[in-house]
Amino acid sequence: MSAFLVLNGPNLNRLGKREPTIYGRKTLDDLEQELRAWGTANGVQIDCFQSNHEGELIDRIQQADQTYLGIVFNPGAFTHYSYALRDAIASIDCPVVEVHISNIHKREPFRHQSVLVPVCLGQISGLGLAGYRLALEALLEYVKKQG
Amino acid sequence: MSAFLVLNGPNLNRLGKREPTIYGRKTLDDLEQELRAWGTANGVQIDCFQSNHEGELIDRIQQADQTYLGIVFNPGAFTHYSYALRDAIASIDCPVVEVHISNIHKREPFRHQSVLVPVCLGQISGLGLAGYRLALEALLEYVKKQG
Amino acid sequence: MSAFLVLNGPNLNRLGKREPTIYGRKTLDDLEQELRAWGTANGVQIDCFQSNHEGELIDRIQQADQTYLGIVFNPGAFTHYSYALRDAIASIDCPVVEVHISNIHKREPFRHQSVLVPVCLGQISGLGLAGYRLALEALLEYVKKQG
Amino acid sequence: MSAFLVLNGPNLNRLGKREPTIYGRKTLDDLEQELRAWGTANGVQIDCFQSNHEGELIDRIQQADQTYLGIVFNPGAFTHYSYALRDAIASIDCPVVEVHISNIHKREPFRHQSVLVPVCLGQISGLGLAGYRLALEALLEYVKKQG
Amino acid sequence: MSAFLVLNGPNLNRLGKREPTIYGRKTLDDLEQELRAWGTANGVQIDCFQSNHEGELIDRIQQADQTYLGIVFNPGAFTHYSYALRDAIASIDCPVVEVHISNIHKREPFRHQSVLVPVCLGQISGLGLAGYRLALEALLEYVKKQG
Amino acid sequence: MSAFLVLNGPNLNRLGKREPTIYGRKTLDDLEQELRAWGTANGVQIDCFQSNHEGELIDRIQQADQTYLGIVFNPGAFTHYSYALRDAIASIDCPVVEVHISNIHKREPFRHQSVLVPVCLGQISGLGLAGYRLALEALLEYVKKQG
Amino acid sequence: MSAFLVLNGPNLNRLGKREPTIYGRKTLDDLEQELRAWGTANGVQIDCFQSNHEGELIDRIQQADQTYLGIVFNPGAFTHYSYALRDAIASIDCPVVEVHISNIHKREPFRHQSVLVPVCLGQISGLGLAGYRLALEALLEYVKKQG
Amino acid sequence: MSAFLVLNGPNLNRLGKREPTIYGRKTLDDLEQELRAWGTANGVQIDCFQSNHEGELIDRIQQADQTYLGIVFNPGAFTHYSYALRDAIASIDCPVVEVHISNIHKREPFRHQSVLVPVCLGQISGLGLAGYRLALEALLEYVKKQG
Amino acid sequence: MSAFLVLNGPNLNRLGKREPTIYGRKTLDDLEQELRAWGTANGVQIDCFQSNHEGELIDRIQQADQTYLGIVFNPGAFTHYSYALRDAIASIDCPVVEVHISNIHKREPFRHQSVLVPVCLGQISGLGLAGYRLALEALLEYVKKQG
Amino acid sequence: MSAFLVLNGPNLNRLGKREPTIYGRKTLDDLEQELRAWGTANGVQIDCFQSNHEGELIDRIQQADQTYLGIVFNPGAFTHYSYALRDAIASIDCPVVEVHISNIHKREPFRHQSVLVPVCLGQISGLGLAGYRLALEALLEYVKKQG
Amino acid sequence: MSAFLVLNGPNLNRLGKREPTIYGRKTLDDLEQELRAWGTANGVQIDCFQSNHEGELIDRIQQADQTYLGIVFNPGAFTHYSYALRDAIASIDCPVVEVHISNIHKREPFRHQSVLVPVCLGQISGLGLAGYRLALEALLEYVKKQG
Amino acid sequence: MSAFLVLNGPNLNRLGKREPTIYGRKTLDDLEQELRAWGTANGVQIDCFQSNHEGELIDRIQQADQTYLGIVFNPGAFTHYSYALRDAIASIDCPVVEVHISNIHKREPFRHQSVLVPVCLGQISGLGLAGYRLALEALLEYVKKQG
Repeated sequence: MSAFLVLNGPNLNRLGKREPTIYGRKTLDDLEQELRAWGTANGVQIDCFQSNHEGELIDRIQQADQTYLGIVFNPGAFTHYSYALRDAIASIDCPVVEVHISNIHKREPFRHQSVLVPVCLGQISGLGLAGYRLALEALLEYVKKQG
Repeated sequence: MSAFLVLNGPNLNRLGKREPTIYGRKTLDDLEQELRAWGTANGVQIDCFQSNHEGELIDRIQQADQTYLGIVFNPGAFTHYSYALRDAIASIDCPVVEVHISNIHKREPFRHQSVLVPVCLGQISGLGLAGYRLALEALLEYVKKQG
Repeated sequence: MSAFLVLNGPNLNRLGKREPTIYGRKTLDDLEQELRAWGTANGVQIDCFQSNHEGELIDRIQQADQTYLGIVFNPGAFTHYSYALRDAIASIDCPVVEVHISNIHKREPFRHQSVLVPVCLGQISGLGLAGYRLALEALLEYVKKQG
Repeated sequence: MSAFLVLNGPNLNRLGKREPTIYGRKTLDDLEQELRAWGTANGVQIDCFQSNHEGELIDRIQQADQTYLGIVFNPGAFTHYSYALRDAIASIDCPVVEVHISNIHKREPFRHQSVLVPVCLGQISGLGLAGYRLALEALLEYVKKQG
Repeated sequence: MSAFLVLNGPNLNRLGKREPTIYGRKTLDDLEQELRAWGTANGVQIDCFQSNHEGELIDRIQQADQTYLGIVFNPGAFTHYSYALRDAIASIDCPVVEVHISNIHKREPFRHQSVLVPVCLGQISGLGLAGYRLALEALLEYVKKQG
Repeated sequence: MSAFLVLNGPNLNRLGKREPTIYGRKTLDDLEQELRAWGTANGVQIDCFQSNHEGELIDRIQQADQTYLGIVFNPGAFTHYSYALRDAIASIDCPVVEVHISNIHKREPFRHQSVLVPVCLGQISGLGLAGYRLALEALLEYVKKQG
Repeated sequence: MSAFLVLNGPNLNRLGKREPTIYGRKTLDDLEQELRAWGTANGVQIDCFQSNHEGELIDRIQQADQTYLGIVFNPGAFTHYSYALRDAIASIDCPVVEVHISNIHKREPFRHQSVLVPVCLGQISGLGLAGYRLALEALLEYVKKQG
Repeated sequence: MSAFLVLNGPNLNRLGKREPTIYGRKTLDDLEQELRAWGTANGVQIDCFQSNHEGELIDRIQQADQTYLGIVFNPGAFTHYSYALRDAIASIDCPVVEVHISNIHKREPFRHQSVLVPVCLGQISGLGLAGYRLALEALLEYVKKQG
Repeated sequence: MSAFLVLNGPNLNRLGKREPTIYGRKTLDDLEQELRAWGTANGVQIDCFQSNHEGELIDRIQQADQTYLGIVFNPGAFTHYSYALRDAIASIDCPVVEVHISNIHKREPFRHQSVLVPVCLGQISGLGLAGYRLALEALLEYVKKQG
Repeated sequence: MSAFLVLNGPNLNRLGKREPTIYGRKTLDDLEQELRAWGTANGVQIDCFQSNHEGELIDRIQQADQTYLGIVFNPGAFTHYSYALRDAIASIDCPVVEVHISNIHKREPFRHQSVLVPVCLGQISGLGLAGYRLALEALLEYVKKQG
Repeated sequence: MSAFLVLNGPNLNRLGKREPTIYGRKTLDDLEQELRAWGTANGVQIDCFQSNHEGELIDRIQQADQTYLGIVFNPGAFTHYSYALRDAIASIDCPVVEVHISNIHKREPFRHQSVLVPVCLGQISGLGLAGYRLALEALLEYVKKQG
Repeated sequence: MSAFLVLNGPNLNRLGKREPTIYGRKTLDDLEQELRAWGTANGVQIDCFQSNHEGELIDRIQQADQTYLGIVFNPGAFTHYSYALRDAIASIDCPVVEVHISNIHKREPFRHQSVLVPVCLGQISGLGLAGYRLALEALLEYVKKQG
């Protein structure tokens, strides 16, 4: 049981195709391959999942509890209103790091608030796709320390 | 057609496994069995359904209109933002009682407001799992009075 | 010492005489007789008290601590501003269940907030006069469990 | 049954003694005598009552329902928070006119809002002690029109 | 120079034709005749003016300063936003009483606030067309007292 | 009596001259000709009026009641604060459709709220000058249905 | 590729069955047939889709980008909170017109705000089922102009 | 006439019995004895009064005006909403110092605001029972300086 | 075409007659003569206009576009709510400087916000009548720089 | 180590020279001498420090931890916004009492809130310069009790 | 003693180097030379001081009281939160004019409010570097009038 | 010029000594050594600076522009109110990453908002001291990509 889950929420399947000035030109597929490669290099397994359906994300988070050492989660727009996702995260023991590709505080006011971050370990925003890898590093280090 | 529906929203499938200091140690299965037993003792049928998916809960509420005398509904975190569930409840004729296991007014501020209760018959909160049975009693009595 | 207190706040002495479309036609006297009868049937004593005076309600709550196993309290309009009643409830050990006959969330905005419920065990609203009896059931069950 | 009630709330017993630049130098006794004299001249009985106790004012309003054609009420500071008085006024059939000696909208912000006026017939403020007599005139005229 | 001005703002020219359940069936013409008759009976002249144009009302208020002992003003919807009218009232010496036919506090929230009343002598609302006459009485009495 | 009124508020006389990236290059004259032509084609008369004066718009709306089957109204910036126009619309029986050329919800926050739309039949925004014609179509259809 | 998509959100499958005083008696099926007929008459194809599931609506909007010239979207209650739908609309190039059957500004406050309209071309509300057809007309005209 | 009044509001009769972690274990009786002893030592008389009734506290404050050099007042929860007590304090000449045993700014948000302090001389909070004695010292010194 | 317009809004015709402690004793006529004299000395023409009518001010601003190099505008109370004036200013090319005689930030809260300043070049407040001349200097310098 | 620190924030070096109607005529030097004298009389050392620089006050508070038994702190205007000072106080073990010479709740709204008091032992305001000595007494007593 | 102080707050030392589209290309040194030259031409001495340290600005303002006839102050971002600077300005007798180079009301919302302007003589914003000289002119004229 | 600056704001000099349950037991010195070591390993120079003085931090940020490739900045409590620091960051070209050791969204509400993050590249919070190193990694990668 030495694996991490990378979870992406609504509209992130369109990464690279949508608003490239904000999100860049790499696709979700590109990103996931890079993260899996990083996993191989660091001796951990990286599983990836994306959905536009809030319910499927909740299901996955619940199942993750027994399976993963940690979750890197970019919740997309659910960040700002899905209290159901919040309860799912709060109900599991494995740590979650919230990641945003863009700096959400530079954008529309509704994006400034995350209803999920109070039940996460921490948050990374504005550091581009690199944010996913940094979150994995942080989780790996965190897990070792808890050891 | 002498049946009631007990509906549970997101994360209530983890009852008994999640935050036992708040929700106790009984599982959803235990609860549903007790409610069905109460139904048998009172000559009514009790059907139960749980989902983490808002859309499935809406579908169920729409179908319930022709099938049940009343609904006991613990909407979980959807309580606080699902206006789509509110419209579903408002569009049916059978009465709904909203139930919360914990006293939502003792918890985080976002839990103090229910967007559903204005279209429900009433609300019970903070009385533990007993709240479900009390809601059924109230509905049974209400239905008889209307009868 | 096997008794419960049913406490009614301002204007509830006019039950059955005032706005019958909201509150029904039963008087406070009718209600109290039914609750005492329920008490007899369940082997507990039910004492009742109503006042339009905030100070008298505070006095009663303070005295109740040594005398009753629980309190069913319909605070009327004090629900929305009497922090003095809140302190009184917080200062005693016996559990209090707040009851409202009508669904306060369907009415004027000022009625949507209760300053008392955060220090009560729970709340029942919108279930008519039946709410009082359900609250007594809940308290009885609660007391047995604490046993 | 041809009588009106003039009701005064907290601190109005100190009329003429307190802040004369705001309230003038006439005492409550002077005012009540003038109003009774006006009553005699107009063939109606004027009863007067003052209290610093919210509960006593509620009791009086409830009793007034069977006894008076209308109430002129200066609720003092209860104007701004006593929802219990509001419920008492809402529960009776006889019309109530709210009166304030000073122009409450020229003073501290908390005095700008009345929680009672939505259930009163109307409101007069800033017209000095004359406001009481004008309110009686308005009620008399109103009662005749309903008559 | 023993005259009063009765000023009516936007849409009050439709009195008696518009929403009779709120405003009654008397026309503005009927009202003005009654007030002039009251003036004759009380030895004062009553001039009347109505306009839907904010600018014309400001002009009139400015001119009134040298001409009238007082103004009875129903500003219609300008009550809630015309700071220019407020400045006009504040810039003159003759006293103004604000009158509203209906109880503005029973209606839409935007009608609960008057931006004019802080610079008026006082306000009467909810007492129907009688409110105009009561305001004239109050002004007459006020002027005599100032003498 | 088979006519509609097209009413334009402040600064719309500068259509085509002002901020063409937002409002396009057609002038108010161009627009009014097109709408009249549409009227001819559909067997109804289209009258047009523009003013920068709130009072003149109120006067027109009051007169429209007896003359037109419906009004298409672009209130310009009065949309956001003219409660006097709101009262004028509320006081007439003929239906009003509010039209905005640009999508007001993409612009400054003060433009997001209309104080008029609650008393209109409906609202069209963001569909360019076509919005006027669509509003006329909607009114024509509405009038036939009521017919 | 000369087609438009008509998208309906939660509870609109109950059109004609639910709250007929607000929504009328035509069913969703009736509406879709009329719109398809209008399409045939205007030489364009009209496809229709309804779902109570936010995720399915997001999926459809993403797929629409390559397939349709424009979307007419009645998002039901998702209008007021689904930022995930907003991101989906923002991520595609084809224009979207938001339609509401009733005038949402006459109803509960939560219905006054749309989180979607800032990324739509425009909005039509309060014009009944006709709003759908007017939106199609507007899109057709818009597409031709861009063409 | 060399006396001070120590006034305690609702629930302070339960001092020492209620929430000792916040309020300590000394009873109100203990406190009053210490303060009277301090009075004897300093050549002034200390009178004490406690009530759970807002009206009785108002009565006392009104009577105090002629009798005491100053008042030390712990208004309990009335601190946060009793504008009637505020008016009573404002209507007397003798200075009042508001005292709170606990640091009200460390507790629930509703306790952070005092509606009384703007009409008091000053306020002491968070210094335990010592606050009462310090307030008496301050008043004694203040009275001498005015003397 | 070497001229500037000095525009004054509602109630500024009463300058020197109204509230001299705030606005001083010079009349509008005095001010306009001084500004015209300054114009002569600086080789530019100064035209002046005052109105209490919002519509007339909008008309003037629209006409100014072709005629003046800049506008000095004291909008009086329209500063705080006339979005129609804001649109007029935004629709012209010639620069506008907003001037207030008194320091509006020292007065009532509603005077702290200007809805016009975001579309003006700048704002001067609190510098007395001198503010008008300073604004003209600034405009003259600005125009030369743009030259 | 038997010493206390008296800390004064920005502008308190101008005590006695600035706004004497609010702050009196004693200088900071006078005050500090009196407090040192009180210290001598009570067997404790009193050190005093004043600065207009937030950073210097933070430095001092950090150093105080090892040196003083308690701090009496009048933070001047930093009271209302210096979260950095709040963190400094929270990071030390020695107790701090916040003192204000004037009653901050009688003054401008921004002075009603203290961002520091939630991490202080308590607060004294409105008792003039005496407040400093009372705070020292309270700290001395507090330290003995903990001792 | 015929001198004025020109005070510049944080980041204004970077004038001409930072965001030239907003602030232009002149450096602080250029500006100060121009102002000193203006002083020479007008027979007054102009002293200049800039600091990024709030404490140093407070120190300077306190010292200025005895030395200067007036202060022109661009407080940079301290404008929006430094209540300590506000108290310093309020504590001196010499008049202060607040200057902003850009129109702060066109920028981020936090820049719309000045906590200093209520204690200044007045404010100039949006008129570029010219604002400094206009402020000096205004002060010179003001001082002569007081003279 | 291949160096990065690590900047720490107020109270971070007490790292390891203050609230270890929140911030851990490592000192600032420990942290800075680790970061310098990381720099050596990655071929870049790491300079470190801490201050409790806002002005010194502004000075440093201004100087950094010519010297460093990027800044890692933990602004401590200045995060929440120092608009002067915000302007300093906005005025330089080198990228800044904001770091918080604890998850600021789990703590007091005032810590939830950063006034600096809208002008930073991004933000990391809740990942402990590791956050500093991750920020350096992100900056290094960012600089290379821009390179």
